[in-house]
Formats: sequence, C-alpha cells, structure tokens
Amino acid sequence: MIEYTDASPEVRAVYDDIMATRQTDWVNNFWKTLARDPALLRRTWENVKEVMAAGALDALTKEMIYLAVSVSNQCGYCIASHTASARKAGMSDAMFAELMAVVGLANAANRLAAGYQVEIDERLRPR
Amino acid sequence: MIEYTDASPEVRAVYDDIMATRQTDWVNNFWKTLARDPALLRRTWENVKEVMAAGALDALTKEMIYLAVSVSNQCGYCIASHTASARKAGMSDAMFAELMAVVGLANAANRLAAGYQVEIDERLRPR
Amino acid sequence: MIEYTDASPEVRAVYDDIMATRQTDWVNNFWKTLARDPALLRRTWENVKEVMAAGALDALTKEMIYLAVSVSNQCGYCIASHTASARKAGMSDAMFAELMAVVGLANAANRLAAGYQVEIDERLRPR
Amino acid sequence: MIEYTDASPEVRAVYDDIMATRQTDWVNNFWKTLARDPALLRRTWENVKEVMAAGALDALTKEMIYLAVSVSNQCGYCIASHTASARKAGMSDAMFAELMAVVGLANAANRLAAGYQVEIDERLRPR
Amino acid sequence: MIEYTDASPEVRAVYDDIMATRQTDWVNNFWKTLARDPALLRRTWENVKEVMAAGALDALTKEMIYLAVSVSNQCGYCIASHTASARKAGMSDAMFAELMAVVGLANAANRLAAGYQVEIDERLRPR
Amino acid sequence: MIEYTDASPEVRAVYDDIMATRQTDWVNNFWKTLARDPALLRRTWENVKEVMAAGALDALTKEMIYLAVSVSNQCGYCIASHTASARKAGMSDAMFAELMAVVGLANAANRLAAGYQVEIDERLRPR
Repeated sequence: MIEYTDASPEVRAVYDDIMATRQTDWVNNFWKTLARDPALLRRTWENVKEVMAAGALDALTKEMIYLAVSVSNQCGYCIASHTASARKAGMSDAMFAELMAVVGLANAANRLAAGYQVEIDERLRPR
Repeated sequence: MIEYTDASPEVRAVYDDIMATRQTDWVNNFWKTLARDPALLRRTWENVKEVMAAGALDALTKEMIYLAVSVSNQCGYCIASHTASARKAGMSDAMFAELMAVVGLANAANRLAAGYQVEIDERLRPR
Repeated sequence: MIEYTDASPEVRAVYDDIMATRQTDWVNNFWKTLARDPALLRRTWENVKEVMAAGALDALTKEMIYLAVSVSNQCGYCIASHTASARKAGMSDAMFAELMAVVGLANAANRLAAGYQVEIDERLRPR
Repeated sequence: MIEYTDASPEVRAVYDDIMATRQTDWVNNFWKTLARDPALLRRTWENVKEVMAAGALDALTKEMIYLAVSVSNQCGYCIASHTASARKAGMSDAMFAELMAVVGLANAANRLAAGYQVEIDERLRPR
Repeated sequence: MIEYTDASPEVRAVYDDIMATRQTDWVNNFWKTLARDPALLRRTWENVKEVMAAGALDALTKEMIYLAVSVSNQCGYCIASHTASARKAGMSDAMFAELMAVVGLANAANRLAAGYQVEIDERLRPR
Repeated sequence: MIEYTDASPEVRAVYDDIMATRQTDWVNNFWKTLARDPALLRRTWENVKEVMAAGALDALTKEMIYLAVSVSNQCGYCIASHTASARKAGMSDAMFAELMAVVGLANAANRLAAGYQVEIDERLRPR
C-alpha cells in the first residue's frame, strides 16, 4: 500500500481529490492498494466519482445499490467499506435491515425462478 | 403452470391477493409455476409482500435493489419481471441507466478489491 | 454436435458406455457437444461416472446435490438435464420442492451472513 | 452481537427455541448478529426451522444440500457453521468428501455447458 | 436497439470507431442496445478500447481472459460474442478446449479450497 | 493438514511429484488439506498437472486464466496461491495490472449485457 507521504504527485492528487470529494481526512486501503498502478487508480476514481454522484438517483440510493451488489457477491472488503459510506450518506439501521431483507429475498427468488425453469411471460419480453 | 381457471381455491386466493396488491389484472408466470406447490406459493408471496412493501425504504428503492441483485446474478426471468415492476413503481430511463452503471461499477470494483487482496481498514471493521 | 452415426470409434465407445451405465437409449446434447474434443469427452465422462456413482452417498442424494449447485449457479442446461436425472434416480415432486426451498434459504442466508459481517465462532473454526 | 444475558425477552425466546430445537446449550454468532433486528431474527429462525425440518427429505440430506450451496457460493461463515451442523446430523468424513467431489464436478460442468453453449435437448425441456 | 441509419451523429461516431478499430463492417447488438444511453455507449466503448488493446498482454490473451470470466459467470451473450472475438484474434479449437479445461478446473478447485476451509499459507500472504 | 513427515507413502508420493514438477521445496496448504482424502489428493493433482501443462496455450497464459476465474469468483485462497504461481511463471506487475483491468471490465460488461437484456446476434449464434 502506498501511504500519502510516500506517494508521487500524481497519486497524491487523486488522494487529495478523494478526501475533498468525500469531505474526510483519510483514504481507505482500496485506493492505497490500487495506487501501485497510478493509471488504474486515477481511472477507477474518476469512474467512481462520475457514477456515484447524485443524478437521476440520489447518492444514498446509489450507495445502497452498490452495497446490495457487494453483499450479493459476498465481497468482504466492499461490504465493510460501502456499509460505512452508505451510513455516511444517511442509511439508518432500519434502512440497512430492509436492504438486507430485499437482498436475501432476491437471491432466494432468483434461484426459484431458475430452478423451476420459469418461462418469460410474453408481455415481459423486451420490446 | 397453473392457470386461474384451473387453480384450487387456496391458489386462487393468492392470485387474487397478488392482483389486488399490485392493482393489476394478471399474474405472471413465476407465480403460476410456483403454484405447483401451493404452500411454497403462499409462503413466497407473503414474504414478497412483507419485504417489498414501503417501510424505511420506499417501494421504488426496494424494486431497484431487487433488480440490481438480479442483474448481478444474471437471472433472466427476474431481470425481465423486475425491470417491469421497477418501471411500474416509477423508475425512469435515466434512473435505470444510472442503476446499471452502479451495478457494473460494483461488479468490477468487487473484483479489484478481491484480486488486489485489499486488507480491511482498521476503522472499517465491524464494531 | 456429433451424432452417433458420425462419431469416431473413440467417441462411440463413450456414447455406448453412457447409454449402458444410464440404461437408456439416447445421449444428451452435453456429450454430443463435448465430443468436438474427444479427450475432454472421455475425461469428463469418466469423472462423472466415478463421482456420481453410489458410495458413502447414494446416487439420488448426489444427483440432488448436483442439481442444487446448478440451480444456485443458474445454469439453464444443467438444471434441465439434472432435474431429469434426479427424477430418474427417484426424486419425487415433494423432494424437489423441499430441495428448492433449501436452495432458496441457503442463498438468502449466505447473504445475510456476509452482509451482517458475522464473525466465525471460536468453536466453529476448523481444527 | 447480542448475548443471552443482554437480550430482550423476544430475542431470548428465539434463542431458547434454537437451543431446544437443536438440543444444544449455545447459540452461534449468526443469530446473535441478526438479533440486532429482532423481527428479522424471528422470521429467519422460523423459516430455517420449517425448511430444514425432516419431510420428504431427511434432515441430513437437507444439511448437505445447504452446505453444497454455501460451498458453491464460497460463504466462509456458512461453510463453517453448516459443516458443523451437517456433521452433527450424521455426515461422515467419507460423505463430506463425496459431497465436495460432486460440488467441484458440478461447478466445472456448469461452465463446460455454458462455454460450449450446449443447447437444451428437446426432450429435456420443461413440459 | 438503435440501427446505424436511425442513430444520432454521436452514436454513429462510436459505431464508426467500433467498425474501424475491429476492421469489420457491422456492429453487434450489445452496442446497439447500449446506444439507448449515448453517454454509456461512448464511455463503455472507450473503456473496452483502452483495456482490450495490446499492451503488456497481447490482444488474444486479453480476449481469452475476458471469455474465461464470461464463461465462469455464465453470461450467454458475452460467451457468444467473445468466443467470436477471441477466434478472430487467433484462438484455435485446441486453444479454446484448453481454455475451457482451465476454467472448469479453476471453478472446481475454487470450491475445494472454500469447502475444505484451506488456510492461506504464511508465505502466500500479500507483503 | 497432513505434514510431509506425518504423511503415508501414497500422500508423500504426490507431495514429491508436486515439488518435482514445480521445482520447489515446499507444498502449499491446499494439498496438505486435501491429503485428508488421499484419493481426492491424487486425482486433483493429476488433473491439475494435465490441465495446467503447456499445450496449445503456454503455462503462463493458463495460470493467468486460472487467476482471472479465481478473482471473478472471489476465492481468497486461490487468488493468493495463483497470484504466486502466475508470478513464478513470468507474470510481471504490468501484466497483472492488465489482467485485473480485463477481469473488472468483463464483470461489469457481463452485467450490462444481462441487465439490458441484449439479444444474441443472428451471426453470433453457435453453428
């Protein structure tokens, strides 16, 4: 992992932008690990900044969708870091509990649909 | 698949509740297939009705989380049916596009975190 | 796909063994597709024959475990073919329904454990 | 995690039922973590109790199917806890080894079927 | 799907670049579907062009890695389209067969490692 | 785990072959754990030796495909051990970074294809 004090100016610029955008004073290990490849670091951060910014969906909804995917994929690091960012964006205990209930339900029902070999309804086919 | 006209009273009661709850006049194949096992049909529907109802999260957010999980799992049937229900709950083209961008990003970043073997930050560990 | 009449002696020998072992008079598309690579065909069939034969677990239990994994992975072909072989090995409608309920439950609970970041209990750690 | 001594009467009632049903004197972390949401705790436990009880399939077969799904999903916590419960239900070393062989085979063959784009046989299509 | 003749200048520019880069005279459905969101189309194509271009790894190796991931994820569309692009980049029947054997093996061994709860060796831990 | 000094002659023979084939003086935990089932140990090792040997694809390409699948499946042990073996087979930092970029891209694009319900092009269908 590349710490701020050891980072090149290019990497520091990304770290600075992360801290400014998130209004925080630290950078988490994900970025400090990606920094081994400065081009990947910059590209990934720009992508995250663009995709996760409020737009048609607000930032909290996006954080919760991101968390739901990470839980479904069982990515330990991503669950830890995006639970924290979703909470920071306003996710309450009750919202987290409902998110988890939906993720559990969808993962179960996805397998019921597959295992029972449910055919797609004529009127649900894409236009 | 069990059509309404061929269904037992127990199965019809679930179909009626699905149509009433969703304010629609048809039942999709998922339920008509599960109806081969009336107890499973009833239990699954009650679970869906409870989990997907507005609470700390509104119904549209829940539908989008459900869709995000189904896309991540690549469940064809579930994507078709929950794209339809999310749209019915108010998901616009722009919201769908942003949802898909978040799902794509999370699936990519989940693998970056895993492949780079990023360690969980001390302050991100669960209390 | 390589049909029996077009198959080389090496491929025919595998087809014959499949039909004899399964006491059936046809070979399904999986094998006819793998036959494009006769060495893969033979190796895969030998592996299947060895692993799926009754041992400490009976053949029906093995077929149901195989089906449960295929449903969990949402592999359309595998679900279709292994539902058929599990039924042939004795899986009733009631057994299938219970298998599906377990698969749905495990897929949901796997995500609850991951999303709630449950720590492994000291006494559940491998010795 | 909520320990027994700190638990509300509602949560204690679930813990008591878990210990009575399983004929054991402790409750594992999964339940102590879910207890942060008493309604989720109760609902999940009732679901587990109903789905995992012996029926058309005996309890050991159900535990092994559950374990096979958890291994396929690579859920660390679930593998640890359900290896323990399957062993308690009677799974021997030889049964575990055969279960793992089937899980490995199914995961490999699922990808062969997908990668070789095997078409579903006419006679394997759902009725 | 947006056909070339119906496309806006912005979308046409991407289609033209796809055809020029790939030295082909058609655009596949993936791009014609993404074109519903021109910004996503452009961003995804630029990403693909950058990531898939020969660098430290040649283009064929990258296509095969992409295909291996798509097979592992069982994404039907991606398998069809990236089998075609890998073949165009030089993948022979023998190379495809060996790629599939590695994908099958890795998927099986990933589950053996998880199910047997293999601990990471001290000297395999990231520095 | 079975250490060399505690191993039966059958298990030692496999350990010796692993060390000779890999030109190394140690055996990693994966094999020492599988050794609890000597037949599984031998079968798995023979399979690995056959599938991973240079053929139409060189050994480094195979190691990178194996690693790409393991990252996609998020198998912690497999990522640690196959990053090491890929490096030993010649994977540079730059090659690893490009491999990871392809794995990230494929995982994202697989979901775009699924979520946008892209239809397979007529000319991409298997012959």
